[in-house]
Amino acid sequence: MLKLLSSPHCFITPLLNPSRGRLHSIARASSSFTQTSVRSPKMDSESYMFGPYKIDSKEVFYSTRLSYALVNLRPVVPGHVLVCPRRDAKRFVDLTADETSDIWLTAQKVGQQLESYHKASSLTFAIQDGPQAGQTVPHVHIHILPRKSGDFEKNDEIYDAIDEKEKELNQKLDLDKEKKDRTMEEMAEEAANYRKLFI
Amino acid sequence: MLKLLSSPHCFITPLLNPSRGRLHSIARASSSFTQTSVRSPKMDSESYMFGPYKIDSKEVFYSTRLSYALVNLRPVVPGHVLVCPRRDAKRFVDLTADETSDIWLTAQKVGQQLESYHKASSLTFAIQDGPQAGQTVPHVHIHILPRKSGDFEKNDEIYDAIDEKEKELNQKLDLDKEKKDRTMEEMAEEAANYRKLFI
Repeated sequence: MLKLLSSPHCFITPLLNPSRGRLHSIARASSSFTQTSVRSPKMDSESYMFGPYKIDSKEVFYSTRLSYALVNLRPVVPGHVLVCPRRDAKRFVDLTADETSDIWLTAQKVGQQLESYHKASSLTFAIQDGPQAGQTVPHVHIHILPRKSGDFEKNDEIYDAIDEKEKELNQKLDLDKEKKDRTMEEMAEEAANYRKLFI
Repeated sequence: MLKLLSSPHCFITPLLNPSRGRLHSIARASSSFTQTSVRSPKMDSESYMFGPYKIDSKEVFYSTRLSYALVNLRPVVPGHVLVCPRRDAKRFVDLTADETSDIWLTAQKVGQQLESYHKASSLTFAIQDGPQAGQTVPHVHIHILPRKSGDFEKNDEIYDAIDEKEKELNQKLDLDKEKKDRTMEEMAEEAANYRKLFI
């Protein structure tokens, strides 16, 4: 049972509101850095980019000056979320030291809250860093998965189901369809619940 | 093909020189922190603990004041190494902000060098954080795997082989046997090669 993250196509990157051709340049974050993670007071009106895709602020439940955390279109387990740098950086090595520290301090905080919220007992943290590691959107993102005993253990059907979802998503992206797997309302509700954990 | 990291027992933690009963307390690292990663001039005489296991300095190829990087007893791919905090911390959330930043800045640097050294094109970074995420040694460790096209793609035999190795390793740990999979000489040679990348 050695599954989930190894395939170049696994850990499909859940894409929200694909809007190809609307690639905005993200202002490069300042290199000055304070340790304090500050939830932006302007969260509702901020825009977030995930590679070439625009992310609705309703899907974002936590942010700092350099990072943000968003819910997932197709979570593999409950509480499977992503943490990204605000700046459009493709590979982990492209992040500045401040960004590297900030996304992981953010991931640490988000993981702690979601593990507790979902009554899980462990966490998986992963970066698929580059296409051969399964990265499908060229924007650094940390996967955080709250884990429970037996959630994937000896359950090949789960992988079959994920494989199937992945094929569907790839097809969707290839065709640039707007069909959604989870509704915006559903994702916004989840994000709203998570947002309360960080107030 | 969604494999490799999901099982509570996957990503077996490669243990080097198991020496149970010799659990030493590691002095808690100071909270003051400078960004500069400094390879210790005393590397050869330093001792490193990995949970309850003593790590021979020959297996360590890079270190900072708060972190160290070591080669692997059973690498899943060439260049599969681990980065740990020096302090004996079980869960990712147990790390101080300085330790969190330092292990990831170390992982970033190590990943960059090993991806190039092994002529790979991507990297997988992962923490199995807690038993239900596959953590077998209660000491935070980042897995870094240089990835190449097709290294695990549609190749179930690889997982079967890893499963088999994992069972053997678990059995070995259960019985506290000293049998080694790779010789110390082999691992020391690999570490020596990697060490040159950081001079």
